[in-house]
Amino acid sequence: MYTSETTIRVRYAETDRMNVVYHGNYAQYFEVGRVEAIRQLGFSYKDVEDAGVIMPVIEWTAKFLRPARYDDLLTIRTTLQHWPADHRINFLQEIFSDKGKLLTTGSVLLYFLQSATMEKTTMPAMMEEKLKPFFQ
Amino acid sequence: MYTSETTIRVRYAETDRMNVVYHGNYAQYFEVGRVEAIRQLGFSYKDVEDAGVIMPVIEWTAKFLRPARYDDLLTIRTTLQHWPADHRINFLQEIFSDKGKLLTTGSVLLYFLQSATMEKTTMPAMMEEKLKPFFQ
Amino acid sequence: MYTSETTIRVRYAETDRMNVVYHGNYAQYFEVGRVEAIRQLGFSYKDVEDAGVIMPVIEWTAKFLRPARYDDLLTIRTTLQHWPADHRINFLQEIFSDKGKLLTTGSVLLYFLQSATMEKTTMPAMMEEKLKPFFQ
Amino acid sequence: MYTSETTIRVRYAETDRMNVVYHGNYAQYFEVGRVEAIRQLGFSYKDVEDAGVIMPVIEWTAKFLRPARYDDLLTIRTTLQHWPADHRINFLQEIFSDKGKLLTTGSVLLYFLQSATMEKTTMPAMMEEKLKPFFQ
Repeated sequence: MYTSETTIRVRYAETDRMNVVYHGNYAQYFEVGRVEAIRQLGFSYKDVEDAGVIMPVIEWTAKFLRPARYDDLLTIRTTLQHWPADHRINFLQEIFSDKGKLLTTGSVLLYFLQSATMEKTTMPAMMEEKLKPFFQ
Repeated sequence: MYTSETTIRVRYAETDRMNVVYHGNYAQYFEVGRVEAIRQLGFSYKDVEDAGVIMPVIEWTAKFLRPARYDDLLTIRTTLQHWPADHRINFLQEIFSDKGKLLTTGSVLLYFLQSATMEKTTMPAMMEEKLKPFFQ
Repeated sequence: MYTSETTIRVRYAETDRMNVVYHGNYAQYFEVGRVEAIRQLGFSYKDVEDAGVIMPVIEWTAKFLRPARYDDLLTIRTTLQHWPADHRINFLQEIFSDKGKLLTTGSVLLYFLQSATMEKTTMPAMMEEKLKPFFQ
Repeated sequence: MYTSETTIRVRYAETDRMNVVYHGNYAQYFEVGRVEAIRQLGFSYKDVEDAGVIMPVIEWTAKFLRPARYDDLLTIRTTLQHWPADHRINFLQEIFSDKGKLLTTGSVLLYFLQSATMEKTTMPAMMEEKLKPFFQ
């Protein structure tokens, strides 16, 4: 299992007139969580794309337990529970308030695709090498 | 069952560098679908809020089957399959290309809350009256 | 002079906790205004890009006179006052409420660039042909 | 004069199909710059709102000199050049690449308004006290 945390500050633009973070903006928060989880492995998702693999989001779920509000400092926890053995990789994502309360949970399924052909592929070697130690 | 369709044109801002609509933006497309579904009943979601009831999104899921691209004219189909008997209302949402291909499916669960107290409530009378004929 | 109007409905996601449209979202409204102004000439901005010319925004200014609110039906007026003689094209953009009140004015400067080389170029032939009658 | 810097990482969602940051998203970057400039004074913009003063954006200009791209680490420099003597406050905003190249410049005019009445007011005492040392 590989788990990683990063923080994010809620922007004014991300709130709506209900005075909470607009639910659609959690897609960006989850994205930041995944991107920083990868960076903490020692390379960047941009490196992955530069190496010819893209990882589009194929499925997405989220449950909103408690609202996040303007200027809140949120912690995004991103967890890879299962070794991605084929073209699929699934992240568990959780968002916590600065008091440690769980606000949002979600699950995001992405595919590994070769950007040149859009054909399914498997995890790039650089990712496999860095992730392996967490799954032994 | 109540079903409704509306169209939306993909904006440049909604695309990302993968040259497709960023997955998080489907939350807005689904929102537009629900809002227009309600408007076609003869009142607006804004009327609902003005009457003291808000409908926050509690859960949403989406499957991205095929990408949507810049300037595409999409059809959003919003379906209420089951009568909302308590504080919950669940919409099935589908997005089609202008050629009728299914691009995205999703499901959005919202709650009815009294905005003054944030307590759970049931469907406002104006909505119940207009929806009833579709569930007989 | 060429002027064109289109309408847009304010989305929930576009409001912020001040209960008005977040100022940054007017960039998208202006964009929709320009895109529809071009479509009303008989081709699309997408056609322009497909023909190898991109039109990045180089400068934009806006004055926010009165707020727009959730579910408002806005009219976006887009005006090309001066013939674009070189690599620059400048649009005047105005947003009106459904009662005809001027809410926002802006000015957007774009360049014509060849997408292959990113070199400055002039207006594509298809645009020149359609715009000419308005400047004679 | 008061000047402040903060950094921001470009999100995937903020790019568009031109493979650069969509120009409208700079409004959010500038907002983050102002918010962190205020936080570095020892209070937050949220404190200002909680004290009954809102600061809506009234005018906005930006010049895009060079594009920012996905995953870039940008520095946002926010400068208050002139003492805000009445209901107006104007920030100069600049965005630099991680190599120190100037990418974007802008100017944002905000008003101080009493949120209860929406009447013009002057800088709140907490802001005046913290800013004064920089203008002597």
